Amino acid sequence: MRLCRFLLDDLTLVGFYMGDSVIAIDQAVEAAADTAGIDLMIGASDDLLDYLPPDGSVHESVRTLWDWIGGLTSEERAELSTPIDEVQLLVPVANPSKLLLLAGNYPKHVEERGGTASEREQTFPYVFLKPASTTLTNPGDPIVIPAISPDHIDWECELGVVIGGGGRNIPESEALEHVAGYTVVNDVTDRQFRPNPGRKARPRDEHFDWLHGKWHDTFCPIGPCILAADPELDPQALHLKLTVNGQTKQDASTSQMVFPVASIIAFLSTFITLEAGDVIATGTPSGVGSARGEYLRPGDQVDATIEGIGTLSNPVQAEEFEE
Amino acid sequence: MRLCRFLLDDLTLVGFYMGDSVIAIDQAVEAAADTAGIDLMIGASDDLLDYLPPDGSVHESVRTLWDWIGGLTSEERAELSTPIDEVQLLVPVANPSKLLLLAGNYPKHVEERGGTASEREQTFPYVFLKPASTTLTNPGDPIVIPAISPDHIDWECELGVVIGGGGRNIPESEALEHVAGYTVVNDVTDRQFRPNPGRKARPRDEHFDWLHGKWHDTFCPIGPCILAADPELDPQALHLKLTVNGQTKQDASTSQMVFPVASIIAFLSTFITLEAGDVIATGTPSGVGSARGEYLRPGDQVDATIEGIGTLSNPVQAEEFEE
Repeated sequence: MRLCRFLLDDLTLVGFYMGDSVIAIDQAVEAAADTAGIDLMIGASDDLLDYLPPDGSVHESVRTLWDWIGGLTSEERAELSTPIDEVQLLVPVANPSKLLLLAGNYPKHVEERGGTASEREQTFPYVFLKPASTTLTNPGDPIVIPAISPDHIDWECELGVVIGGGGRNIPESEALEHVAGYTVVNDVTDRQFRPNPGRKARPRDEHFDWLHGKWHDTFCPIGPCILAADPELDPQALHLKLTVNGQTKQDASTSQMVFPVASIIAFLSTFITLEAGDVIATGTPSGVGSARGEYLRPGDQVDATIEGIGTLSNPVQAEEFEE
Repeated sequence: MRLCRFLLDDLTLVGFYMGDSVIAIDQAVEAAADTAGIDLMIGASDDLLDYLPPDGSVHESVRTLWDWIGGLTSEERAELSTPIDEVQLLVPVANPSKLLLLAGNYPKHVEERGGTASEREQTFPYVFLKPASTTLTNPGDPIVIPAISPDHIDWECELGVVIGGGGRNIPESEALEHVAGYTVVNDVTDRQFRPNPGRKARPRDEHFDWLHGKWHDTFCPIGPCILAADPELDPQALHLKLTVNGQTKQDASTSQMVFPVASIIAFLSTFITLEAGDVIATGTPSGVGSARGEYLRPGDQVDATIEGIGTLSNPVQAEEFEE
């Protein structure tokens, strides 16, 4: 079951994500009542967490609705659907409390970035934050190349984990029970942000350049939907692919992660209280631009796909200045 | 004019901060109407940004009210006041969009931490983020020493800048016009967070240990109030002092900053859109615990004071585990 947020005629709605269309929840509720006598109390909330496990207040009703849709004929379903190009998809988690991301979590990616492949037992996850309010970008909205540093803007396709039930000191064996669902994150990165080019070198320059290069406006597209967590769903068995202008750049599996989702949740919760709505991007596999000497340019189209979730598509645009 | 948020009988209220007391805005509005015929439309918002420059919707009315209070006798004022120990002060900005902090912005602090004093022209500000929702701590609430890493917990008294009017590419000459006000931040820091002690050394371990050591729950006390920005107020001429159990540890002036407030705002806005409610902690001067070989212990009392703003007081407590 995939859920999305979208704009239709200036209304923010929640729907089932069907790839080439969406089914608005409110319309489906009405149809289920009218045609099948199924009465569901599903409010008008546009917070997807309300619809998702483990704690969403209407999660069970949404499952019932989804099962009912599953029993429709394709003709009946088509009647309920709105074509994807008639809606504007929105970031699935509007205001995450924390937007946490891993730096390097696939051995091949670590290798190509000049480090050494590392093993889980011998290392620990490198985690950083992006400013959510200014980096999160809707599916379809542009990644904006910053005028201040336009030449080394890179892509990073990552599995995003949306926390549904918070906690501290969550055991790894129970960690996936805290997940609301999964999405696609493009951790867009400026590999060469260098403020004050005439500067005197200091020991920590490299790290802060790296960190600040993660923070440009629009540098965190996310979506197109949230795939609801499910005991049957293994987040470590998903195929992941990123293309630029149709050419494959990243092609990997979440099975290659050094730290799997459950261990990342367990690690973070040893020192941070995780909260419903936190988003954790789990690192990117090999195939990033910096290893290829290729970077994003205005006019490019980036498509980040994760199996079972969908494709997060964003055009690339140059920064425009107001007159 | 200093404003604070506080709890009184389970109600979240906004008031004038008087040091040893608060004057609830709603009570003052009533008194001004009853005794002086001054009718002010000040709503029930508990968002201090509504009361502050440059864009607060009731900022002008609050100024009028403050002027009226200034003309009262001390007896009349006492009647309006609630003693500070009868209220629970709250973080002045409940949900900052971004909680940005500077690492090293006073030459002496840089020196004592083993780096070299740096000059503004030759360097750039090192900025990092803390997770606001889990680190922000009310005045009076405990700094909790994490059980996972209890032995190197340090203090950092900093001038906090609350953005009132957002923007991109803000010129330094106009930057202070975007400030709503100033507060006190204690950037509590774990100097020795070392996950997975048996780990194999990697080049970036040091930086991520440093960054993660900023993120423990409760590690960002803030308050006690916001001193409203004012064209007459120079944020680079404020005395700053931190004591632990009454003993002075930090004693400096904001005049010593390498990057003054206006230049920090200008720098950040070259690559990030600043938003109303963003909080920027401007770095700490010399006198931190790590340079003294002293760290916080359960039972300690930390008082961070900035001239004109007030004292942010927090006890230190060991982490307790639920049964």
